[in-house]
Amino acid sequence: MLTLDFHPTGRHFLSIPGPSPVPDRILRAMSLPTIDHRGPEFAVLGKRVLSGIQQVFRTRQPVVIYPGSGTGAWEAALCNVLSPGDAVLMYETGQFAALWHKMAVRLGLKTEVLGLPGAENWRRGVQADLIEKRLRADTQHEIKAVCVVHNETSTGVTSDIQAVRRAIDACKHPALLLVDTISGLGSAEYQHDAWGVDVSISGSQKGLMLPPGLGFNALSARAIEASKTARMPKAYWAWDEMVEMNKTGYFPTTPNTNLLYGLAEACDMLLQQDGGLDAVWARHQRWAEGVRTAVRAWGLEIQCADPAVYSPVLTGVVTPEGVDADKVRQVIWERFDLSLGTGLGKVKGRMFRIGHLGDCNDLTLMAALSGSEMGLKLAGVKLASSGVQAAMEYFAGHPATAVLKKAA
Amino acid sequence: MLTLDFHPTGRHFLSIPGPSPVPDRILRAMSLPTIDHRGPEFAVLGKRVLSGIQQVFRTRQPVVIYPGSGTGAWEAALCNVLSPGDAVLMYETGQFAALWHKMAVRLGLKTEVLGLPGAENWRRGVQADLIEKRLRADTQHEIKAVCVVHNETSTGVTSDIQAVRRAIDACKHPALLLVDTISGLGSAEYQHDAWGVDVSISGSQKGLMLPPGLGFNALSARAIEASKTARMPKAYWAWDEMVEMNKTGYFPTTPNTNLLYGLAEACDMLLQQDGGLDAVWARHQRWAEGVRTAVRAWGLEIQCADPAVYSPVLTGVVTPEGVDADKVRQVIWERFDLSLGTGLGKVKGRMFRIGHLGDCNDLTLMAALSGSEMGLKLAGVKLASSGVQAAMEYFAGHPATAVLKKAA
Amino acid sequence: MLTLDFHPTGRHFLSIPGPSPVPDRILRAMSLPTIDHRGPEFAVLGKRVLSGIQQVFRTRQPVVIYPGSGTGAWEAALCNVLSPGDAVLMYETGQFAALWHKMAVRLGLKTEVLGLPGAENWRRGVQADLIEKRLRADTQHEIKAVCVVHNETSTGVTSDIQAVRRAIDACKHPALLLVDTISGLGSAEYQHDAWGVDVSISGSQKGLMLPPGLGFNALSARAIEASKTARMPKAYWAWDEMVEMNKTGYFPTTPNTNLLYGLAEACDMLLQQDGGLDAVWARHQRWAEGVRTAVRAWGLEIQCADPAVYSPVLTGVVTPEGVDADKVRQVIWERFDLSLGTGLGKVKGRMFRIGHLGDCNDLTLMAALSGSEMGLKLAGVKLASSGVQAAMEYFAGHPATAVLKKAA
Amino acid sequence: MLTLDFHPTGRHFLSIPGPSPVPDRILRAMSLPTIDHRGPEFAVLGKRVLSGIQQVFRTRQPVVIYPGSGTGAWEAALCNVLSPGDAVLMYETGQFAALWHKMAVRLGLKTEVLGLPGAENWRRGVQADLIEKRLRADTQHEIKAVCVVHNETSTGVTSDIQAVRRAIDACKHPALLLVDTISGLGSAEYQHDAWGVDVSISGSQKGLMLPPGLGFNALSARAIEASKTARMPKAYWAWDEMVEMNKTGYFPTTPNTNLLYGLAEACDMLLQQDGGLDAVWARHQRWAEGVRTAVRAWGLEIQCADPAVYSPVLTGVVTPEGVDADKVRQVIWERFDLSLGTGLGKVKGRMFRIGHLGDCNDLTLMAALSGSEMGLKLAGVKLASSGVQAAMEYFAGHPATAVLKKAA
Repeated sequence: MLTLDFHPTGRHFLSIPGPSPVPDRILRAMSLPTIDHRGPEFAVLGKRVLSGIQQVFRTRQPVVIYPGSGTGAWEAALCNVLSPGDAVLMYETGQFAALWHKMAVRLGLKTEVLGLPGAENWRRGVQADLIEKRLRADTQHEIKAVCVVHNETSTGVTSDIQAVRRAIDACKHPALLLVDTISGLGSAEYQHDAWGVDVSISGSQKGLMLPPGLGFNALSARAIEASKTARMPKAYWAWDEMVEMNKTGYFPTTPNTNLLYGLAEACDMLLQQDGGLDAVWARHQRWAEGVRTAVRAWGLEIQCADPAVYSPVLTGVVTPEGVDADKVRQVIWERFDLSLGTGLGKVKGRMFRIGHLGDCNDLTLMAALSGSEMGLKLAGVKLASSGVQAAMEYFAGHPATAVLKKAA
Repeated sequence: MLTLDFHPTGRHFLSIPGPSPVPDRILRAMSLPTIDHRGPEFAVLGKRVLSGIQQVFRTRQPVVIYPGSGTGAWEAALCNVLSPGDAVLMYETGQFAALWHKMAVRLGLKTEVLGLPGAENWRRGVQADLIEKRLRADTQHEIKAVCVVHNETSTGVTSDIQAVRRAIDACKHPALLLVDTISGLGSAEYQHDAWGVDVSISGSQKGLMLPPGLGFNALSARAIEASKTARMPKAYWAWDEMVEMNKTGYFPTTPNTNLLYGLAEACDMLLQQDGGLDAVWARHQRWAEGVRTAVRAWGLEIQCADPAVYSPVLTGVVTPEGVDADKVRQVIWERFDLSLGTGLGKVKGRMFRIGHLGDCNDLTLMAALSGSEMGLKLAGVKLASSGVQAAMEYFAGHPATAVLKKAA
Repeated sequence: MLTLDFHPTGRHFLSIPGPSPVPDRILRAMSLPTIDHRGPEFAVLGKRVLSGIQQVFRTRQPVVIYPGSGTGAWEAALCNVLSPGDAVLMYETGQFAALWHKMAVRLGLKTEVLGLPGAENWRRGVQADLIEKRLRADTQHEIKAVCVVHNETSTGVTSDIQAVRRAIDACKHPALLLVDTISGLGSAEYQHDAWGVDVSISGSQKGLMLPPGLGFNALSARAIEASKTARMPKAYWAWDEMVEMNKTGYFPTTPNTNLLYGLAEACDMLLQQDGGLDAVWARHQRWAEGVRTAVRAWGLEIQCADPAVYSPVLTGVVTPEGVDADKVRQVIWERFDLSLGTGLGKVKGRMFRIGHLGDCNDLTLMAALSGSEMGLKLAGVKLASSGVQAAMEYFAGHPATAVLKKAA
Repeated sequence: MLTLDFHPTGRHFLSIPGPSPVPDRILRAMSLPTIDHRGPEFAVLGKRVLSGIQQVFRTRQPVVIYPGSGTGAWEAALCNVLSPGDAVLMYETGQFAALWHKMAVRLGLKTEVLGLPGAENWRRGVQADLIEKRLRADTQHEIKAVCVVHNETSTGVTSDIQAVRRAIDACKHPALLLVDTISGLGSAEYQHDAWGVDVSISGSQKGLMLPPGLGFNALSARAIEASKTARMPKAYWAWDEMVEMNKTGYFPTTPNTNLLYGLAEACDMLLQQDGGLDAVWARHQRWAEGVRTAVRAWGLEIQCADPAVYSPVLTGVVTPEGVDADKVRQVIWERFDLSLGTGLGKVKGRMFRIGHLGDCNDLTLMAALSGSEMGLKLAGVKLASSGVQAAMEYFAGHPATAVLKKAA
C-alpha cells in the first residue's frame, strides 16, 4: 500500500490560491457521523448551512448548494438562466474567465468576449466602460447576460463588481449580471445583494477553507424569474426543486452531508468573531499588502498592474525574463515543502502565485515568503533586496485590527 | 451555536440504504491534508484511485470520477452519449428508476418506460424479455440507449444485468446499455466488462462507504465512440478532457481531494482482503438472508417478490395494511436512535427499508433488527414470531466464509 | 508495517467493563492542537476540567488529576495520607480490591483484609457491619484508613459507601475513608462530599469515556490535613504542589493536555444534558436491569448475589459448571467481533462480564446481548430461554426517562 | 460552553521545547478505537511499540512504558534501583536537573549535587571530570547512582553522556548511571546500550511527537539486578511485573492504549525513513545550527556557552540586560500566535527558548524566527542584524541530507 501522507517532517505549507489549507476545526467537523438526509436531524443542519452561506454571500435571497466543484457552479449559473443560442457578454481577465468562456461556447451559447488588448488584459480588472459601451450598442437587448470574474485566481486581480452593475444600469440594459466569486468569497469583500448581482458563483475550497466538493449559486429575483423560461436542458443543476425543498432544510437529491458539517463550521469561523466578515476581509487586505511589500522589495513585478484592484486573495509574482517560474516553484517545493501556484494559460512559466486566502496568519505567510525568497535565490534569480525583511517590517508595523482592539 | 452532534449517548445506528455509515478508517483518510491538485504528489493519489475504482467496477476501461452526487452521474451518462430528442428505453423498477426517467424527460430525451403492470412492477426486477420484445420492434434502431437500475434502492430488488445484455444482443440492437449501480457497487456483485455494460453509474455513499460527494461513470469503447458525436450540451460532465487528463493521474477541474483520500482507503478495504471483492459480495448476501429471515419470522412481507432478485444491499419491509410505516420508523428513531429508510414514491407509508450495505457486521444488523422488532411492537404491529430470534439462528448457523476459512 | 486497525468490517463492539468505547466527540476533542501548558490559554482549559471533574465527583473540594492510570491513583491515595507501617483496613470484594491490597502490602503498609468467607465474598458488597465491628475493636485507633471499592469491576457489585461511612462514624473512629470508584464514577451514583469520603480514586477509561491515561484523587479537608504529616515517600503523586498550583488552572508538571481536552468534552457530555448526572446514573441502572433480565432468561447466574448492590456498570455472568467462560468469550470474539470481559483471579474461566458503562444505548446493548446469546449457544451452553427476547421486552417496556420527558 | 480551540485564524506555531506539535499522522493514529487490553489484538500493538521504542532508545534491553509523565519516569528510575537513604550523585545543568534533585530529596535519598560555580553552571554541560573526581573520593562506594540530564530543556545544553560513562568506568565505581533524556530522545543522538547507560528516562511529548502522557525507563542488566534488592517502596512504578508481562505484549495494569497507537506511528515516522534515526538526528543538528545562526546575527547570546554541547533540540536565547524575556514572549504570542518557551528557575525573565525538536521543517523554523525577530523589535530590543536573513542563508546554503540524496 502506498502511503498518501506525502510530507515526512513538519507541516507542508500549501500556499496555492486554492484549495487552501483546511483548518483542523473543519476537518473535525467533517468527521461527524453521516446522518439520514431524510431524517429529522438533517433539517437542523440544512437550515443552518443555508442561513450561514447566505450571510457569507451577504444576501437574503436563496443560495443553492451543489455537490460539485466551482466548474459545476459555473454551468449551473449558465444553464438556469439561459436558452440555447443566447448571447452572452463575457470579459476575459485571466485563465478562469477564459475557461468559463470556453464552457459557455461548449454549452452552445453565443459568446462575445471583451478585454484590453495584449498582455495588459490579464493584468487589470474588468473595464466597466467597455461593458457599458457594448451594452449601449445592443439596442435590441440580445445580450442576455454579462459574465465577469470577481477575483481572477490566475492573476490576482479583484475586479470592481459595483462598477459593472453601474455600467449595466447606466444603459438600462436588462442583461443579467453573473459573477464568479469562486476564489473571492470569504476572503475578499463580496456583497451579493448590495451590489445587485443576479447570480453569484462560488466553491468550497478557497475562502471557505473547505476541501473541494461544494459549488454555490446565489440568486436574485430576476435570475429566478429568468430560470422559469430559460430553455437550456438542466436537471442536476436546476434551481427550482432545490430552492423549493431547501425551505424545509432538505435537499431533493443526496447532499454532501459531511462537507455541510464543514460548511457549518466554516460559516461560524467567518461570521462569529469580533467584526464578522468585515474583519475577515480586512485581514486578507493586510496580508496581501504584506506579501506585495515583499514582492516589491525583491524587485519583481506584481502581475496585477492596477493597485486599485490588487487581490486580497493571492498575489501573482512575475519572474524576470529568462527565468522559468515553474523551475523556481520546483526548487521551492523540493527544498522547502512549500507549494505555490503555477502560472496558468498564457502566463505559464512567467509567473507564480502566492495564496493568502482562507486560513492564514502572519507567520504562515512569513514561512511562505521565506521559502519563496530562498528558492528564488537558489534558482538564480537576482533579488533587489529581502522581501522577507520588508514583509516583517510591514507586519510588525501594521498590527491587525483585532490586535489593535485587544490592546485598546 | 447549535451543536451538530445529534446523538447524546452511544452510537447512532444508521441503517438506511445509504448514505451508509462511514468507517473510521475512511474518516481518518479524509482528514489527510489537502494537497495541490496540480502538484507532483497528486498524480500518486490520482492514479491510485483511478486504478482502484476500475477494480471495484471490474473494468479495464476508463472510469470517470466527478465531484457530484449519483444524480449528477446519471446526467453525465445521458448527456455524454445522447443527442437532444434521442429515444431512450427505460425500465421502472422503483423510485430511482422513476427519477432517472424524470431527469431524461427534463433533459429533452424521448423516453419510453417499460414495466410490469400495477404494484408488481416495484416488486420484481427488470424483465429482460420485455426489453427484448421492444427492441425487436425497433427495426429502425431509433432507440439509442437502454437504461436500467441494477440495485433499486427504493425497493430492494437487484436486477439481472446480464439478462438485459443478452436481450439486447439477441436482437442485435445497437442501443447502448446504461446501468445505474449507485447502490449496488461495492456490496452487490457487479462486473462492468464481463457483463458488457456501456455506461455504469455509481456514487460514493453506498457500498463504497464514503460520504456523499463523488459520482462515477464507467465507460465502454462504444460509449466513448458515441460520446464523440452526441450533441447534448455538456461541459462539466463531458468525458473527453477528463479521460484524457486522467491518464497522467490529474483532473481538468478541481477534484474533491479529501474524498479521493477516502476513496483510496475504501478501495483498499474492499480489494485488499482475503477473497477480495467476491468475499465482499458474499458477505452482503449472507447479511441480507439473515435480515430476510427476520422479516419472514415477523410474518411481514418483503417488498421484493422474486427471491431470484433479492437485494444484498437492503431489504424492503412491507407493513401490514393500516399501519403507517413512517410512524413505525418514527417510534424506532425516537426510542432506539436507529434510522431506517422511508418508503419512497408510491410505496410511501407502506414499507420501510433496512440497509445492509457498506460497513456492517452481524451485530450491527442484530442491533438494527432488535430496534426494528421493538419498534414494530411499540407501534402496535402484531408479529408472528421473533425475527431477532430467527436472525440469530441464521447468523449463528451460517458462519461467514472468512470465519470458516480461519477455522479451516 | 502492520496495520493496527483490527476490525475489517463494521464496528467492533467493545463491551468490556472498561476501557469503554470512546465516543467520536471525545476523539475529536482529543485531536485539538497541543498547547503550551505554561501559556495563557492553558489556564482556561485547566480551570474548566478541574471544575468539571469536581462536579462529576459531586465535590467542592480539590480533585487532583494525574497523568497515569487508576493503579497510579490508588498509590497516590495511599502514599499521601499514610506513613510506612500504618495499619489499613481493607475489604475484599473482588480482584481489584485484592490488587489494591497487594499494592498496599508492597508499599509497606500493615494491611488487614475483611470479607465474607468463601466464594460468597466476591458475590456481595462490602459488609459495613464487619467494618464497624473491627473498628470498635481498634480502641487505640491504630487503623489509619479504611479502603473499599465502590464498584468492583471484576464482579459487578456496587457497594454501599454511605453504609461504610455510617459504620465509621458509629464508632467515632478517626480512620480516613478511601474509596476506589475507578469504574463507578460517571456511570454509578457517586457523591464524594455528601457521602463523606476522604479520598475518592478514579480513572479516565470507564464512565468518563476517555482512553486510559488519567487518574484522579478527590480529597477532603481531613485527607489534606493527614497528607501534611504522612511520611510515605512521595513526589510524583504528592498532592501539595498540585492542589496549590491548580488554583490558577496550571499544573506543576506536564499535564496530559490532549486527554484534558477529552476530559472537558466528557464533563460536558455528562453534565450538560437534561437531568445532568442524575439522568446519567438512571440510564445505567436501566441498561443494567435490561442486561440482567437477559441473563435471568438464559437461566444463568449473575455473579452478584445481592440485588441491593447490583452494578449499573457491568454484569458478571456465571457460566454453567464445566463450561470455560473464556472459551465462550473466544467464540463470541471470533464470530461476532464482540469483546466481553474475562473472569479475573479466582473466578477465571467461571464467568464473563458484560459492560454497560460509559457511552451506550439500548441497541449497543442489544448487539452485545445478541452476540453473547449466539456465542453461548455455539459454545454448547444450554439456555433456558432467549435473553435477547427478554431484554427487548424490558427495553421496550421501560422507556428511558429522557424519552418519557420528551413525550410528555 | 467555552471553546477550547484558541487559535482563530491560521495555524498556531508551538515552538516551545515540548510538548512539541503533534503531527496529524499521530493524531489520526490516536483516534483508532480503544481495544480490550486483555484481548488477542492487543499483543500485536504491545509487541510493536515495545520493539519500536527499543529501537528508538538503541537498546536490546527492556524498555518500560508508563502511563504518566516524564516526572513519573524520573521517580520510577530512582525508586526501582535505590533504597531509602542511598547516596546519589547528581549534576545540576539547569532547572530540570534541579527538579530531579528536588524529587530525590523528597523521596528520602541522600543527594549530592555537582556543578560549576555561578551562572556558568547552567550554560555548560555535565563536567565529567568533576564526577570522576567525586567518585574516586568515594572509596567505600556509598554512592549508588550518578544522575545526569542528557538534554537540559531549560537551557539548551546536550551533555556528553559517554564522557560520564568513561568517568565512572575510569574509577571502576559501581554506581549506576541514570540519564534523563526526556527531551533528547528522538531528536538528539542517544544510544542506551552503546553508551552504557543503566536507566534512561524519557517521555512522549518531545522528540516522539506525541501528546504528554507516557513515561519511559530503558533498563540495563545491572539496573534490573539492583532493582531486585532495592528497598524504596514501589508499586505503580515497579519494573518486575511490567518487564515480565511485556514479554507477551501485555501490561499488568491498564495501558494508555490510544497513546500507544500514537507511539507505534511515531516509531514508524522516526525509524522507517531513509537513513533512519541517524538521519533524524542529523536534521535536528542542521535546524539547530540554522536557529543559532539567527541568534548570532541578532547579536544576542546563546544560553549554552559551549559549542561542543549545543542542543539540537532547543536554543536558549538570552535577552539583553534590562529586557524582560517574558515580555518579549508575550508580544510575540499576542501579535504572532507563536509560543516560545519561558526562562525557568534562575534564568526566568533572562532568556526564552526556541524549540526545534520533533515535527519541524525549515519553514516552520523560519516562521518561528520571523515571529521572534518581529517581536524582539516590537519589544524594543536592538538587533545587530537580521537573524531571519542569516537563517535563510544557512538553510538555503546547507541542504538537508535527504535533499542531497534525492538530487544525487
